[in-house]
Amino acid sequence: MKAAIIGATGYGGAELIRLIQHHPYLELGTLVSTSQTGPVARVYPHLSHIDRSFEGLHVDELCANNDLIFLATPPGVSSEWTPLLAERGKIVIDLSGDFRLDRPEVYQAWYGKQPAPANWLRRAVYGLSEWFGEEVKEAQIISNPGCYPTATLLALLPLLQAKAIDPSTIIIDAKSGVSGAGRGLKQAMLFGEVNENLRPYKVDGHQHIPEIERFASFVAGQEIRVNFVPHLVPMNRGILVTIYAKRMNNYSIDDLSEIYQNHYQKASFIRLRQQEWPETKQVQGSNYCDIAWHIDERTHQVIVLSAIDNLMKGAAGQAIQNANLRLGWPEESGLTFSPLFP
Amino acid sequence: MKAAIIGATGYGGAELIRLIQHHPYLELGTLVSTSQTGPVARVYPHLSHIDRSFEGLHVDELCANNDLIFLATPPGVSSEWTPLLAERGKIVIDLSGDFRLDRPEVYQAWYGKQPAPANWLRRAVYGLSEWFGEEVKEAQIISNPGCYPTATLLALLPLLQAKAIDPSTIIIDAKSGVSGAGRGLKQAMLFGEVNENLRPYKVDGHQHIPEIERFASFVAGQEIRVNFVPHLVPMNRGILVTIYAKRMNNYSIDDLSEIYQNHYQKASFIRLRQQEWPETKQVQGSNYCDIAWHIDERTHQVIVLSAIDNLMKGAAGQAIQNANLRLGWPEESGLTFSPLFP
Amino acid sequence: MKAAIIGATGYGGAELIRLIQHHPYLELGTLVSTSQTGPVARVYPHLSHIDRSFEGLHVDELCANNDLIFLATPPGVSSEWTPLLAERGKIVIDLSGDFRLDRPEVYQAWYGKQPAPANWLRRAVYGLSEWFGEEVKEAQIISNPGCYPTATLLALLPLLQAKAIDPSTIIIDAKSGVSGAGRGLKQAMLFGEVNENLRPYKVDGHQHIPEIERFASFVAGQEIRVNFVPHLVPMNRGILVTIYAKRMNNYSIDDLSEIYQNHYQKASFIRLRQQEWPETKQVQGSNYCDIAWHIDERTHQVIVLSAIDNLMKGAAGQAIQNANLRLGWPEESGLTFSPLFP
Amino acid sequence: MKAAIIGATGYGGAELIRLIQHHPYLELGTLVSTSQTGPVARVYPHLSHIDRSFEGLHVDELCANNDLIFLATPPGVSSEWTPLLAERGKIVIDLSGDFRLDRPEVYQAWYGKQPAPANWLRRAVYGLSEWFGEEVKEAQIISNPGCYPTATLLALLPLLQAKAIDPSTIIIDAKSGVSGAGRGLKQAMLFGEVNENLRPYKVDGHQHIPEIERFASFVAGQEIRVNFVPHLVPMNRGILVTIYAKRMNNYSIDDLSEIYQNHYQKASFIRLRQQEWPETKQVQGSNYCDIAWHIDERTHQVIVLSAIDNLMKGAAGQAIQNANLRLGWPEESGLTFSPLFP
Repeated sequence: MKAAIIGATGYGGAELIRLIQHHPYLELGTLVSTSQTGPVARVYPHLSHIDRSFEGLHVDELCANNDLIFLATPPGVSSEWTPLLAERGKIVIDLSGDFRLDRPEVYQAWYGKQPAPANWLRRAVYGLSEWFGEEVKEAQIISNPGCYPTATLLALLPLLQAKAIDPSTIIIDAKSGVSGAGRGLKQAMLFGEVNENLRPYKVDGHQHIPEIERFASFVAGQEIRVNFVPHLVPMNRGILVTIYAKRMNNYSIDDLSEIYQNHYQKASFIRLRQQEWPETKQVQGSNYCDIAWHIDERTHQVIVLSAIDNLMKGAAGQAIQNANLRLGWPEESGLTFSPLFP
Repeated sequence: MKAAIIGATGYGGAELIRLIQHHPYLELGTLVSTSQTGPVARVYPHLSHIDRSFEGLHVDELCANNDLIFLATPPGVSSEWTPLLAERGKIVIDLSGDFRLDRPEVYQAWYGKQPAPANWLRRAVYGLSEWFGEEVKEAQIISNPGCYPTATLLALLPLLQAKAIDPSTIIIDAKSGVSGAGRGLKQAMLFGEVNENLRPYKVDGHQHIPEIERFASFVAGQEIRVNFVPHLVPMNRGILVTIYAKRMNNYSIDDLSEIYQNHYQKASFIRLRQQEWPETKQVQGSNYCDIAWHIDERTHQVIVLSAIDNLMKGAAGQAIQNANLRLGWPEESGLTFSPLFP
Repeated sequence: MKAAIIGATGYGGAELIRLIQHHPYLELGTLVSTSQTGPVARVYPHLSHIDRSFEGLHVDELCANNDLIFLATPPGVSSEWTPLLAERGKIVIDLSGDFRLDRPEVYQAWYGKQPAPANWLRRAVYGLSEWFGEEVKEAQIISNPGCYPTATLLALLPLLQAKAIDPSTIIIDAKSGVSGAGRGLKQAMLFGEVNENLRPYKVDGHQHIPEIERFASFVAGQEIRVNFVPHLVPMNRGILVTIYAKRMNNYSIDDLSEIYQNHYQKASFIRLRQQEWPETKQVQGSNYCDIAWHIDERTHQVIVLSAIDNLMKGAAGQAIQNANLRLGWPEESGLTFSPLFP
Repeated sequence: MKAAIIGATGYGGAELIRLIQHHPYLELGTLVSTSQTGPVARVYPHLSHIDRSFEGLHVDELCANNDLIFLATPPGVSSEWTPLLAERGKIVIDLSGDFRLDRPEVYQAWYGKQPAPANWLRRAVYGLSEWFGEEVKEAQIISNPGCYPTATLLALLPLLQAKAIDPSTIIIDAKSGVSGAGRGLKQAMLFGEVNENLRPYKVDGHQHIPEIERFASFVAGQEIRVNFVPHLVPMNRGILVTIYAKRMNNYSIDDLSEIYQNHYQKASFIRLRQQEWPETKQVQGSNYCDIAWHIDERTHQVIVLSAIDNLMKGAAGQAIQNANLRLGWPEESGLTFSPLFP
């Protein structure tokens, strides 16, 4: 099956190319970029062994030549293109935030862009595979989760569902490498400004907040508001979230272990850590999400730690996982490699 | 005045050497190391222009030749030596944790070492200059605050004192560069293991917790328990703490600004940030503590950010500031340089 | 076929585990470590999805249960064990330096260890696959090249063979990430000492010099002495060598291009760069060697640049490539993934 | 005395602000920027304790209010402004390359910009203080050396003058942190592209080559051509050059030591290393240049290593040193602090 990538020249696009290239059932289809066309090797010298080119967007041709379409585009692009592609019967996996929120006015408030039409938003399935895998199998539009929400929700949802934590006390302190910010030119992203620096940003509101709140509320069965503060760490890849919430119902550490084990016993990419805390390097370049938990008995606070590679489980890897589910292949296809270490 | 350093071969000791060397009123006295003796240039080639040597500890000689003594020693050393030196009338500034807790059993529980005698613990003054400067001026033993407690308490105490936050809801998510961990040999501190990695550690209890709780409780006038999770960031210097607590008494953002401004209007090394968030690089190599605050009106959560250089305001810089206070010199003496950037 | 790894707990061993795990024809056999035994997940949490253990060395058992044996051991170990294993008919691929020099006295002079017996040294084939692939196909002992020699010889040998450079003028300025130095505990390898630092080392003689000289001399048909200065770069993976030599016979830049193209037209892992200079990130995590060349017409100097991932083409990747050749599989088996970027 | 800075918003300008601020005899004058005006704290939050603003350029006012003028401008700016300022009798210290080459056509060929008039070029004195300090004391226009030429010439000139190396064999392999490239927006300078990467650049010609050749030729008394290849290292500050040249006249290592010692015995900022190799971290944030040398007796090659902080001895530090010389103050004024470590 041929897979096209729209927005192929960003970091997420490059990661999709890398993954599709070695996928047992997928084949690289059209590589679309509106910013840069020409040989892949010129834009990405690390891919100079790939004899392919980036092209402009031609919807008819694209649909004629590809079975599956990934969008790795900036906010506000997919909202326009995805309906066009879906109308022509294509399966669309959207890595942008355009189809992650079901209410247009919420999207507009947090993204400051024109939302997709409400009826299209409703048709999209949220591709957090470990939670909504059954829906993904039938979806035409799969909305691939954001990097921060992936790390957060995978850690948070089992506890919310089990009523082990107080939903009104959730604090998410998030830390990310730079690749999540993309390849755009900003002074704040120059090496000299990021290296030897730790920088909080969007303390007054990050667009991933409503995404986390939507699915946390859904699973908890009640409206939830969370605190979320992201920080930029001087490294290329990796997200670690440290989640704090008040323990409820006097759950013990063993109860929490049981909750996680029950939930994720068949999840290929969740590695539950019992003896050490997750570190971003331990998932680097892989599709794993490592999760550990702790109860501070002095304060009755539950602390959960969750680590992913933001370009993999937080973007391209999860997108491939969703493609595998949707197309009936083994979920791990093309994703079975170990993390790169060191 | 001559200042000796005991434990001069660690990162904190090297920073003290650098600062004393350029201090207008202090002069480098005896440099004591029990692990490495010989020329400074051999242990620290970056100081090869300093024609001095590290020596073993000889208490009589030390006291005869020095006016002021800094201890930058591992836990469990100062508890033994500080009384000896103080008994001979020396002013002691202890950068270790040995005199920061007033109750011996708490020290023993968190540090796992033999505590100093209780009567000596009581004589030590906690050298958080912006809060206890008056006591510092008269102290014989100054217990220099820990790096995490410095960044945390400077941000937290004004709000606790003003009853702007609920003391039972405090969460401190802390991030530090590697120099806080010292120069000891551990596999986990090798470049290959730290670089491109973000690592939480001591999630189940860090020895700085009782220090934070002691002084937070004191200022709040009630017993306080905090949550504190430290993380290791791939950089050499810098601490950023992100503090979360529930707003009380309906304080507004302007109220918080007023609290901080009132409190720190005469504090030379506190820079209150109104328009951007603190970053560790902006204080690198300097004695500044940058603080900013935010109220999330959706959740009524107060978020405070505080950045220091852990070897400066978090260790050697604050120690010099305390020496200045104690000896009646201008507080800024030898500390007026700007951060190194980039 | 089952492949054992002796010395499996170092960085090179971990990389072999990663590669064998996803190899189409190889299977992970015994994992031997003399320093650490027990579950893989304890030594390498990033491999916690692998349910295997490190064991001590038991030669009989090892030979009974494995077809192929990789040694990723420190100098002076393989010289003793390889003959034992080869005598029992096993194919041995040695990643250490013990079988790279054919003259015992040269090994002893540069490594300061007891050399392997001369008759065994003679039986080893030097596994620089692009140059000695035919010999590798028949070898019982394959001596896998060093990381610096791999990057250097692949760039240098075509020019030497074509007599395009003066063999008496060769200067190799080499730069490496830290993983080449292994996981051993040394103060100089702490993050705080390597980060924000560039460090030359072994300026007065590195043990890879005689290896480079041996094969450069062999191809040039004359005795060659080179200058070689290695530098440690604050990054985890990657080697770049910058080679300088006087142009001979008035070769033009096009002549050099032709020489390289002719030589490497069938080499899957050599990427000749015509328009940009090689960078280590462009080969990160892959088995590629990127090579570019330049003639400074002002000085008649030829400059060649060559980049590899030291753990891949410079160690484990090349070892797998040699295993593929030796066992008659396609040379690229298990090595076709693209570099990780960024 | 008041010192103005033109081009104050770049990294070099910020370093000058830091240094002047703590200089015993200099005072911060007008801060000129043509790209950004407004409060210093907005452009450089790390300087938020400085209550000053960046202003546009008004020549009359500038000359009226300042005694000394530093230019830290991009190529092609100083060539126009320096004559205007010098005509009004101001002492000008130019950190750009505009006055480093005495022949206009050479400047034009390497910089691709309109050169300054030949008569003005002739009036400028090259501010390599350790070599041309006497001329600096009388100069009206001081052309501050480039970062690479500073590290290179300080290491090279003593050997050339002593005829210890063959001038036709000089190879300079140079490595630099990113701050030398300035704060401009380029994709290649993003953190994601520089981190975990080593990148050669301008292999076919860097504009510092004619500057090195000019002064090397002058001291050697013969026309010299050098090879020079720069590399970008993932760190903020620091330059290391590794220089190779054939030994002449059978000089021994002791002879070289004597040459260097004789030459630099009174040079405050040159640290000759006898037992270890220079590393960039050992000079970080300071005005030192560390130099070490080696003879490879196998190849008769002399290898010299030289490390500086490119923003200090390679730019702003050396500019202050030149100002000190010019104004008759002790050469070390305002520059006596030790390197920041780690």
